[in-house]
Amino acid sequence: MAGRHTERVWFDCISFTTDYGLDDGFVAACHGVMAKIAPHVRVLDVTHTVTPGDVRKAATTLAQTVAYLPPAVHLAVVDPGVGTARRAIAVVVDDGLLVGPDNGVLLPAAETLGGVREAYELSTPEYRLATVSSTFHGRDIFAPAAAHLATGVAPSKLGQALDIRALKRLPSLEVVVAQGKLVSEVVATDRFGNVQLAARPADLTKAGFHDGDRLAIRAGTIEKIAYLGDTFADVPDGDPVVITDSAGHVAIAVNGGSATKLLGDPKKITIS
Amino acid sequence: MAGRHTERVWFDCISFTTDYGLDDGFVAACHGVMAKIAPHVRVLDVTHTVTPGDVRKAATTLAQTVAYLPPAVHLAVVDPGVGTARRAIAVVVDDGLLVGPDNGVLLPAAETLGGVREAYELSTPEYRLATVSSTFHGRDIFAPAAAHLATGVAPSKLGQALDIRALKRLPSLEVVVAQGKLVSEVVATDRFGNVQLAARPADLTKAGFHDGDRLAIRAGTIEKIAYLGDTFADVPDGDPVVITDSAGHVAIAVNGGSATKLLGDPKKITIS
Amino acid sequence: MAGRHTERVWFDCISFTTDYGLDDGFVAACHGVMAKIAPHVRVLDVTHTVTPGDVRKAATTLAQTVAYLPPAVHLAVVDPGVGTARRAIAVVVDDGLLVGPDNGVLLPAAETLGGVREAYELSTPEYRLATVSSTFHGRDIFAPAAAHLATGVAPSKLGQALDIRALKRLPSLEVVVAQGKLVSEVVATDRFGNVQLAARPADLTKAGFHDGDRLAIRAGTIEKIAYLGDTFADVPDGDPVVITDSAGHVAIAVNGGSATKLLGDPKKITIS
Repeated sequence: MAGRHTERVWFDCISFTTDYGLDDGFVAACHGVMAKIAPHVRVLDVTHTVTPGDVRKAATTLAQTVAYLPPAVHLAVVDPGVGTARRAIAVVVDDGLLVGPDNGVLLPAAETLGGVREAYELSTPEYRLATVSSTFHGRDIFAPAAAHLATGVAPSKLGQALDIRALKRLPSLEVVVAQGKLVSEVVATDRFGNVQLAARPADLTKAGFHDGDRLAIRAGTIEKIAYLGDTFADVPDGDPVVITDSAGHVAIAVNGGSATKLLGDPKKITIS
Repeated sequence: MAGRHTERVWFDCISFTTDYGLDDGFVAACHGVMAKIAPHVRVLDVTHTVTPGDVRKAATTLAQTVAYLPPAVHLAVVDPGVGTARRAIAVVVDDGLLVGPDNGVLLPAAETLGGVREAYELSTPEYRLATVSSTFHGRDIFAPAAAHLATGVAPSKLGQALDIRALKRLPSLEVVVAQGKLVSEVVATDRFGNVQLAARPADLTKAGFHDGDRLAIRAGTIEKIAYLGDTFADVPDGDPVVITDSAGHVAIAVNGGSATKLLGDPKKITIS
Repeated sequence: MAGRHTERVWFDCISFTTDYGLDDGFVAACHGVMAKIAPHVRVLDVTHTVTPGDVRKAATTLAQTVAYLPPAVHLAVVDPGVGTARRAIAVVVDDGLLVGPDNGVLLPAAETLGGVREAYELSTPEYRLATVSSTFHGRDIFAPAAAHLATGVAPSKLGQALDIRALKRLPSLEVVVAQGKLVSEVVATDRFGNVQLAARPADLTKAGFHDGDRLAIRAGTIEKIAYLGDTFADVPDGDPVVITDSAGHVAIAVNGGSATKLLGDPKKITIS
């Protein structure tokens, strides 16, 4: 829940996304830092097992989850540029804030939440830990910033306003649609082996495909036949199916099986 | 803690068991959905790394944990039949509720908690998310149901009462006891390599085995000698031992080692 | 936050470190036990994926995290000696308590927190579960003790005072410094492939090394050249660098890569 008292806006939830893994104490140190600054806050872990440095995976995971979270400060730290000149930023959206490095990790989630309203650099020493290491800004800069923001500190106190057009963005994934043919980059694969495409259901319609169509799915040199359906069970066990997934993307799935196994963990899919 | 105000029963804990893994945002989305509907609730994660679709492992893990949890709504979603006609259900027990698919995942835990009192289908649209995907009922149907129930909504509001004798049950695991011989299916293995049998200590007694007995353990073509003891340290380092484990089952363990390594991850064990 | 009411000291945070893994219900059972005894407490998970039985890794992880956590009862259970005569203990520090087996797992964190003030055995049946298994003392002895201590029960109620000089300690890791040469055992490696040495920055100074020096790093038969720098980005992508890490130790890192891959997961490093 977010609250407004005169000018203060506070949050009782911080969502937390990193590539820190669960085998070390990194995530716990950040939890601890936040609990000390903002004891009232519930930290909701999105994931901490993003492949080290995979900014796009973190950005995608947060963007596809954030609509289901309470109003919150969303802390996302996948930060291969820690210790370089990349900026630390806070991004203001309509009913929340996002905190992390300025490397594109925050912006897809900000779009889901209605778009970036303002952005600020995180530079005020008062809102960092007293000692800032050169390698663990999650603990020393980002977690303290998120926690202070959750207590109602105005983002403008944390540093100077930034031109939101100058924020770093990840390149868009490519979707090319023609009559009878759709080529799409893969956004992500999940634990169940589903292959999520950048394409949306409207792209299938534009390509002239209809429910029940028998489609050729090509991933590199691999080609399989799949039906266009609504859910896994629209095809027999072990067969592939093209569906709209729970994030609203076109996805290739296998009923009771794994599309990544069938298609070899592809980066691009052609449907015709 | 569960509370009763006139007719309302609410819970401040929801336990949560899935095969969603921790690498994507699926678990977090469910946490978020529950936090929005029932902000007062603490979600206690049982496990989310059940092998995809392994209903028995999820059922067993929850059944062996649930007695140690506070009164709660127990949400368990391992749901290979998502999108088929399998029912979504809520099960009422003496001091709690269980929510999940009607595929047997809930019933072992319900037995631990004293047995099923009532069961209801989850069909009332008001207690689902506004949009229900075809592939993520954990987020769209089960988590909202669990959260609404935790706030004190009567289970009968969520859908029609079901005949509890018609609920789907997992087949029982086989234990055969004769004088001097016990054959038991394996329930589960754990991180430490302990092999938990369906057999109980009373079965050892029925077979005529006593503490300190030197027993032959057979798993397929592998045969090892193990002593019947109380704890790992009853045998030298690296030696196998037959014990009663912390869930009250007969288990094969290796002191300072792994019984699954010794026995090759068996499905059935013969002790003689 | 810790509170004092007349003589009672309570804690609203319990940190929790184990080798129980996340695939079974072991961690959840302990969470449940603590939630029942001390419903007001927030349990902050440090890590549960310590390699089974790796007491040093658990001790190190907790010691390097604990300064960033709120005042708390720190529960750490990596307990290869469960079921032997090893003692169960509570250790009192200036602004917290530590609970676990007397095998050295608690003491490095106690040092970080200012050193051991008092120690007590955990033997009073009243502060254990009613039934104590022979293999799961985390659930049956340690979690209940931590939770009771968090509610303000005096440690002396849990058992007899122990001579703090007799507590079991892990052997120190070796650091040998000469002019132009430093030999150090490895403390730990992390998910990013950083190799943390027992050596501290002062050891580098004693050896006569300066920022920007070109150093030979030897791990067994592998030898690499690395610069002494401040952060990953002080060297080109893929190159090794000697830095001070976020826990204040000397570490070998690779910019955008993994030092464990480069050096073969070493136990000892020679820098010259």
